[in-house]
Amino acid sequence: MVIDVLRATTTMCVALDQGADKVIPVDTIEECLAFTGKENYILAGERNGRKVEGFHFGNSPFEFMDGVVKGKTLVLTTTNGTRAIKMAEHSYQVVIGGFLNFTALTRWIVAEGRDTLLLCSGWRNKFNLEDTVFAGAIIHHIKEYFLVDSDSAFAAEKLYLNSRRNMFHFMKQSSHYRRLAHLGVINDIKYCLRPDLTTIVPVLKNGALVNADHDKKHRI
Amino acid sequence: MVIDVLRATTTMCVALDQGADKVIPVDTIEECLAFTGKENYILAGERNGRKVEGFHFGNSPFEFMDGVVKGKTLVLTTTNGTRAIKMAEHSYQVVIGGFLNFTALTRWIVAEGRDTLLLCSGWRNKFNLEDTVFAGAIIHHIKEYFLVDSDSAFAAEKLYLNSRRNMFHFMKQSSHYRRLAHLGVINDIKYCLRPDLTTIVPVLKNGALVNADHDKKHRI
Repeated sequence: MVIDVLRATTTMCVALDQGADKVIPVDTIEECLAFTGKENYILAGERNGRKVEGFHFGNSPFEFMDGVVKGKTLVLTTTNGTRAIKMAEHSYQVVIGGFLNFTALTRWIVAEGRDTLLLCSGWRNKFNLEDTVFAGAIIHHIKEYFLVDSDSAFAAEKLYLNSRRNMFHFMKQSSHYRRLAHLGVINDIKYCLRPDLTTIVPVLKNGALVNADHDKKHRI
Repeated sequence: MVIDVLRATTTMCVALDQGADKVIPVDTIEECLAFTGKENYILAGERNGRKVEGFHFGNSPFEFMDGVVKGKTLVLTTTNGTRAIKMAEHSYQVVIGGFLNFTALTRWIVAEGRDTLLLCSGWRNKFNLEDTVFAGAIIHHIKEYFLVDSDSAFAAEKLYLNSRRNMFHFMKQSSHYRRLAHLGVINDIKYCLRPDLTTIVPVLKNGALVNADHDKKHRI
């Protein structure tokens, strides 16, 4: 499970929820630009929190609402999240999410019942608070179904328990908040912390994120 | 500051407190064995928590009491702590410690007044709980003197605040506790969590840890 709650993996869920055919995560701006002019492709992404010059959109979840992605393929590159997905692409299966698909995601993982690695994207190869707290939330809600035996999982869960009464307040103390607040995207952060807005579960298939089939085994 | 509270950096403080001339941290068992037979040298260390065959001692703080190291040079190799010291040796200055020299260590850092990196040794290149909690304790006690601006520092401090009412209970939930408990060294862990047993501040000079000079500037 690749986690970049502020904002890449949240935005990807929004795009699929809003009817995008698929989301192609790419590492570099150049790979993204290679899709320029292709019919029904939308280029989007950010570097250091800012929209990339020449792209249709940045990385704010609000940019992908109002039908703009319906039936389209979104090609997205971000500072940390898309890189983490590329790192994980040789796993048995890659799933992504955020608070907005939290319950659907936990149900899906439990139904799959496989060894699971929570990969926090962080910020430029460093630990970050928001992805760790999200991982802790996942652990807290699924640990009865799994053997959880690592100090990082224990610490992440503790941090989630510290934060859950007022997550926005907790997140305000993160370095990412300070970076994004400076860019005027407080509403993005608030949106990214809202739980269960969708039941979409994006999984990677042939290099693109698509909604996992929701058959009966996912209803627990 | 290199941190390996269970048990390397605690044991090093004990050795110096007990009158060892110096402690030479080495990476490998072979480097340690190169000192075999040298007068006034003691070879010690562990791999995976167990004493290395052929060494005088393992890595338990209790082994270095009762005058055995007085006037001697201790050559020590451990799974994580001595490696972390070697990684840090090209810094401006390397200092080490644990709960047993906590107050002396924080005073020394504040008096130095330099940019400081807390390097948690972890376990085989992974995050561990005990070193993170210790780093959090340091941060909590010195943050008014420093600009602390990283998510990992914030998280470490939170974990320390979660643990401080009953640190032994908290540490029992770490993977290291489970490893060491299996080896029967619960008393070592309890000892490693006892605060302020010594005012020793070991710093690295020419490849060996010696007690920093305690001049007036260190009394704050």
